[in-house]
Amino acid sequence: MTEAPAIILVRPQLGQNIGSCARAMLNFELTDLRLVAPRDGWPNADAGPAASGADEVLAAARVYDTVQEAVADLSYVYATTVRGRELTRPVVTPAQAATEMRGRGARSGLLFGAERSGLLTEELIFANAILTVPVNPAFGSLNLAQAVLLAAYEWHRAGDATPAAVLANYEAPAPHAELEGLIVALDAALVDAGYFKPPETVSAKRMTLRNLMTRPAWSAKEVRTLRGMVTALHNGPRVRRKE
Amino acid sequence: MTEAPAIILVRPQLGQNIGSCARAMLNFELTDLRLVAPRDGWPNADAGPAASGADEVLAAARVYDTVQEAVADLSYVYATTVRGRELTRPVVTPAQAATEMRGRGARSGLLFGAERSGLLTEELIFANAILTVPVNPAFGSLNLAQAVLLAAYEWHRAGDATPAAVLANYEAPAPHAELEGLIVALDAALVDAGYFKPPETVSAKRMTLRNLMTRPAWSAKEVRTLRGMVTALHNGPRVRRKE
Repeated sequence: MTEAPAIILVRPQLGQNIGSCARAMLNFELTDLRLVAPRDGWPNADAGPAASGADEVLAAARVYDTVQEAVADLSYVYATTVRGRELTRPVVTPAQAATEMRGRGARSGLLFGAERSGLLTEELIFANAILTVPVNPAFGSLNLAQAVLLAAYEWHRAGDATPAAVLANYEAPAPHAELEGLIVALDAALVDAGYFKPPETVSAKRMTLRNLMTRPAWSAKEVRTLRGMVTALHNGPRVRRKE
Repeated sequence: MTEAPAIILVRPQLGQNIGSCARAMLNFELTDLRLVAPRDGWPNADAGPAASGADEVLAAARVYDTVQEAVADLSYVYATTVRGRELTRPVVTPAQAATEMRGRGARSGLLFGAERSGLLTEELIFANAILTVPVNPAFGSLNLAQAVLLAAYEWHRAGDATPAAVLANYEAPAPHAELEGLIVALDAALVDAGYFKPPETVSAKRMTLRNLMTRPAWSAKEVRTLRGMVTALHNGPRVRRKE
């Protein structure tokens, strides 16, 4: 199995942002956090609270003086940036990067620049490719932890054998014979209520009724509940309403 | 083109989180922000700074008293939650939801619960489906703005893709306000028929009724047909049947 990528924060400023990044990482099963020349040193007391319990990521974080040292053991490095286009590099989305990282079978890393200044060209040059999140061209203002979140999310997602949609608290649809009982009861109530008029509409109306009752795929319990409602409407006391 | 989904924050607590959500939305070209009963009222002075320039989203935000009012014009609603499994609903990932919303051709909404408490069952029941982000099972602690970010990101991302397969003869689900009309009419008929007895069962029966009527996601035409049936059962002639 391909090892999860390292997240490398280059000259991060606020401890709070480092903590938020750790939290975003652990949400998606990334644990290798690397800090290059954090402005306020390391450890940083502001990081813990923002990590909201992702303390294991902070505790295992490694600190480096330079990008070069931080990426030394990595085979392929992506720099997340909207700048740095002066370099000739492939530019990929988070989804493409995730697929590539999974397929490559070697250790990868994702470089994130400082909060305001981003990555310098002399740091970017250590990257093999540029990762850019496709954002609103008129408003692209992801913060550090959000950029980490999206990259981590895509890594995690690429590992799924995409689970099909499932039903919460799923109950199998009732056997058609039970559904038929509901349809027959509703039909009888509607006959008595004069719904099937004029006569030439009967056949189309019956078809519609069956369609409406069949599509929801109600469970046996739900069908029984609906039969109870139909019985009440059919046989219960009638209060003549004012028109 | 399918309109972008509405983001509905239910009982949000911190203005800062509302601002962060607005920023995450605008990053991915969502602009319809709805607030249900924000704890500290609206507008909230803490929201602006956190929005980092997404002021147009905050300025256009609409406030509602209830989830029901907030979703009235929406045809299909997803509730983002890890709870609420007591209801039978399809459970989808953000990517699946995005593809569905693009393909459905009707207005959608995404419900997000309060920071700690999440969505109540009586709020969840207005949702047609549950959206769950697949996170690290041992550490899933997305905050509000991060959950909004991922949903918005997937919506934006799905806009690049080839349109998904569509259902044969598909009609968009009716806006919730039209469905509400059906529920109210059926409820009134059942009241007159004496269905809601004994009194201590009323609340559970009403919840069940709403649940049964919401899950099928009937089209506007289907909802009108069902209302016709309910009207007939309620007001039509009654033939006393032999027992």
